[in-house]
Order: sequence, then C-alpha cells, then structure tokens
Amino acid sequence: MSAPVYDRVALIGLGLIASSMALAMRERGLAGTIAGHAKSAETRAVALEIGLCDAVFDTAAAAVQGADLVVLAVPVGAMAAIAEEIGPHLKPGACVTDVGSVKQAVIGAVAPHLPEGVTFVPGHPLAGTEHSGPRSGFPTLFENRWCLLTPTERSTPEATARLRALWEGMGAKVDEMDAAHHDLVLAVVSHTPHLIAYTMVGVADHLRRVSNSEVIQYSASGFRDFTRIAASDPTMWRDVFLTNKDAVLDILGRFTEELFVLQRAIRMGDGDMLFDYFTRTRAIRRGIIEAGQDTAAPDFGRVAVKPAGAKG
Amino acid sequence: MSAPVYDRVALIGLGLIASSMALAMRERGLAGTIAGHAKSAETRAVALEIGLCDAVFDTAAAAVQGADLVVLAVPVGAMAAIAEEIGPHLKPGACVTDVGSVKQAVIGAVAPHLPEGVTFVPGHPLAGTEHSGPRSGFPTLFENRWCLLTPTERSTPEATARLRALWEGMGAKVDEMDAAHHDLVLAVVSHTPHLIAYTMVGVADHLRRVSNSEVIQYSASGFRDFTRIAASDPTMWRDVFLTNKDAVLDILGRFTEELFVLQRAIRMGDGDMLFDYFTRTRAIRRGIIEAGQDTAAPDFGRVAVKPAGAKG
Repeated sequence: MSAPVYDRVALIGLGLIASSMALAMRERGLAGTIAGHAKSAETRAVALEIGLCDAVFDTAAAAVQGADLVVLAVPVGAMAAIAEEIGPHLKPGACVTDVGSVKQAVIGAVAPHLPEGVTFVPGHPLAGTEHSGPRSGFPTLFENRWCLLTPTERSTPEATARLRALWEGMGAKVDEMDAAHHDLVLAVVSHTPHLIAYTMVGVADHLRRVSNSEVIQYSASGFRDFTRIAASDPTMWRDVFLTNKDAVLDILGRFTEELFVLQRAIRMGDGDMLFDYFTRTRAIRRGIIEAGQDTAAPDFGRVAVKPAGAKG
Repeated sequence: MSAPVYDRVALIGLGLIASSMALAMRERGLAGTIAGHAKSAETRAVALEIGLCDAVFDTAAAAVQGADLVVLAVPVGAMAAIAEEIGPHLKPGACVTDVGSVKQAVIGAVAPHLPEGVTFVPGHPLAGTEHSGPRSGFPTLFENRWCLLTPTERSTPEATARLRALWEGMGAKVDEMDAAHHDLVLAVVSHTPHLIAYTMVGVADHLRRVSNSEVIQYSASGFRDFTRIAASDPTMWRDVFLTNKDAVLDILGRFTEELFVLQRAIRMGDGDMLFDYFTRTRAIRRGIIEAGQDTAAPDFGRVAVKPAGAKG
C-alpha cells in the first residue's frame, strides 16, 4: 500500500457521501487518520460503531484540529455556519473541500470564513443513491463516477492536484470546470429531473379518482423510477433548489415550453412529431451506455422482486 | 406438468411482450402449440431461430387458424387493421386478447371486427423494459407483475377465468377493472411519466450552453433514470399518447399546475414548503417497496459499470 494522500482527514457530516468516502479511504489506505463530526449524537455513535472514523467529535471545530483535509459533507444550507465555526481552528496549510451539489452558493458561503494560508477546492462527486445516513455508505460508491472540482482563487494547483489524487484513489474520474457552468450542467442532469420526479409523485398522491394503493400496485410501468428519485433526502434537495435557483428556474422554463410543444402534438394528433421526438431521445440513452455511465441491462439489471414464499 | 391452458396460441406481433409470453408459456407448459406472425420477415426468422414459436406465418390471418387464444401484441395503432384481417379466420369459440397499454381505444378498434361466438378479453401486463424486438423477451418478465384485464360485453366469465389462469401461470398477479379506469390509472403511473421523461431528455438535447457530451458524462445523478424511460419503443409510445389522449392531457394539466406551485416556492425561497413536499413523496417510495413492486436495494441494485480494463 502506498503512502496516504492526506495524513489526517476530517469529515464534517457523516451521511451517505462522507460514510462512503470513509470506507473507500480506509479500504485503499488513502488517509492516515479519519476524524468525524455529525450534529446528531446517534450518527456519531453509529460512525464509531461501524468503524467509519478513528475518532468522532461533538463539534466541527474540534474535529478539524490538525486536519490536512477538511471535507464539508453537510447540506448546502448548513455550509456557512460550519465554515464560520471551523475557520479559526483550521491548521495552516490545510485544504478545505466540500461535496455539495451546488457550487456557486457554497463558494459564497464558505470562502469568506477561511483564514489566509488555508486552500479551498470545492468539489462535487456525482454519485449517490436514494438512501441517506451513516449506514447507507459503501466503499465503491464513487467507482467510475465523475467528481467535478470547481477551483476558485483560493485553490492552488498543488491543493487541487492532491484532492484530485484522493478522488482518483477512490475510483472516481475527475474533471474541473467553472462553478457557474457546473451549476447549469447540474440543473440539467440532476436538479430539474429531481424536481420533476417530485412533482409527478406528488400529482399521483393528490389524485382522488386514482387511489394511492393503485398507484403503488401498478407503479412498475415507469412511475417507480420516478419514486426512486423522489425518495432522496428532503433537506439536501430543499437546499439545492434554494441555492441553485436561477439555473433551475431557467431549465424549468425550457422544460415547460418543451412539454407544451409535446402536449400540443398529442392534442392535435401529430403522430409523426411524437415519433421523431421519441426516436431522438432513444439515441441519447445509447450514448450514456456507450460512455459507461449506465448499465445496458434491461431495467437497470434490477433484481426481480420475489413475493414472500415464492419459489426459484 | 399439468395440461396446457390453451391447445393452440397465436401471437400476433413478436416483440418484447409476445416473445416473453412465448418463453414463459413454453417453460411452464401453458400452451400446446404456439403460432406466430410478425410483419417483418426478419422478426419471423428470428422467432423460429430462437424457438419462440412452433410455426410462423406471413399473415396474421394464417397464424390465427385453429387458435384457441389469439394475442394481439402489436402497437395500439395497428390493432384495428389486424382485427379486421383476422376476423373472418377466427375459430368459433376462440378467445381474442391483447396486451396494449391503452384499453378503451383497443376495444373500439378490435371489437367491431370479431364474429359472433368469439370472446374478447382485453388485457395489459404491466411489465416491460426499455428494450424491444423478438430477442428482448425473457420468461420471467411477468413474475410478480400485475396483469390488468378489462372485460367487455364480449367477455364471458369462462373466457376471462381461463385467460387469468394463463397469466397466473406465467407468474403474474391478475386484477380486473373497467377500461376507462384502467386508462386513467395508466395515465398516472405510466403514460405521463413517460412523456415527462421524453421531454426532459429532449430539453437536455436542445441546450446550447451545456454540451451533449456533458449531459451524457454527468448523467449519473438522476437524469439517466429518465433516459432509460425515454429509450422505450417510439412507435408504441406514439400510439399510447394518441389513443389515451384525454386521460394524458388531464394528468398533464395537473402535473403542470403542481410544477408551477413548486416553481413558485423555489422562486419565493419557501424552504418549508419544499421540505414538506419532498418528505411526503419519500413515503410513497416506501409504500412501493413494501408492496413488493420494486427492490429496496440502493440505485435499484444497479450493477456498477466497470470501465474497460478495470480490476475487481
């Protein structure tokens, strides 16, 4: 095993992403020591019990003492308060990063609180599941997934390169881009799809003429994919929409326009338009599979759900 | 092995659903002989080559000769012409069923062409994947999935019970409902989600400021679930929207209203409203998993995509 990338890493927040990082760093020897902090005493106890951290601390300020890398893995709306708390306790030469889904808002919230001599390299691993909490992590979460870094004027080339090495060590592919561009790209590939999935699930929930049990029973034909997305952590997603407001509203506006065009084609009975549209979108799916971003197995290779007592 | 449910079954159309039925019926001895017809000569050749059918026929009229059960497994828009063609060739006492995603339109298209003494029991298995064609079928497609039957005045209790036995034999759970109610339920759990997924994928494809390669590379965070849905068969989906127009436009109207409510909450910064909404939708996901309609495994238990040459 080669030398760790960082001697001491502090994880602030111990949910899905941080717990997966802890497991991946341990498995591959990427960190000498892992310190952790979570707001909830129960989460801290779980983190020790399942061996995510070498030590947990009641406060973020205590957890970052002596750390070479501090990872802010809390909801975007909690970043400013955490940064203000840890600022005075950061080791000179330390690097601060984060895993937030929005980058401009995090930079605005965190950078002002960091002292001279501390670098800041914002990051965002494009990986996750619909589960959350310290027990939801697994060490291969970042395998072959992208991690986007959005360096700022507080990033040095050395600090960025070292953080890149950590992410690559955890199996991720790393790309760098401007924070504003990141926020727009994510509004397209993640934030707006999530809002739409939440909306569709909400519509189904409200309908009087179709019962909830029918929606649940007959969900196999498309809807259940939406419910997976709409089962993601509510706090995290509230913060994403509030802090990436402009890009999300922009993409939502385009989405609504486009939906009205298709809706009109349905109303007018324009089958050719619908067929051409659906043929184009199918090609994009092929691109995603060819790029190694998803499995080509039917239905994601989903394992069939067996009824209780079923054979085979 | 018990006696077959039908001595001779004719499959008209040999795509994902019919090929899965053929494999399931063979594996479980549910049909004595399976005859097949597909419009394309290539599909017919594949069906023989991989053993879906005992015999294939160039015309639907020839395929249905002597059949006890005729399964119409063609796009909804093609049902009327097929029914007209086969009507005069159906065996007295035969049962006709279909697997279309819309039921009122199919009933309107098919029933007028069926002679006296032939029963008609419309059906719709809620199962499928994003793949299509005769090679995409597999015998467990219907395991623990629902099949909805919408009996009409042309259905007899005996014919309905026998068709139910066939679907149960293939592993499906069977429910009966009114055709109009079916079309509304499906507009909620399937048709509208598909249209929305197609729309979102189309938006991503049109954007100038975010490149297609970025959309593809960074699709892991929500968007790729939409692309799976939006990769479904274009002909089938065109016909679904054209023939279930009223219910889809109704649900789309509700969806747009609801989306505007959430959009407004984002614009006004109403975090409490968003949080409460996202918490409710999460509960629906739990209901689906408890009902055995999806796997609780993170990310559907998706198998990680390994880059070429990766270890482990």
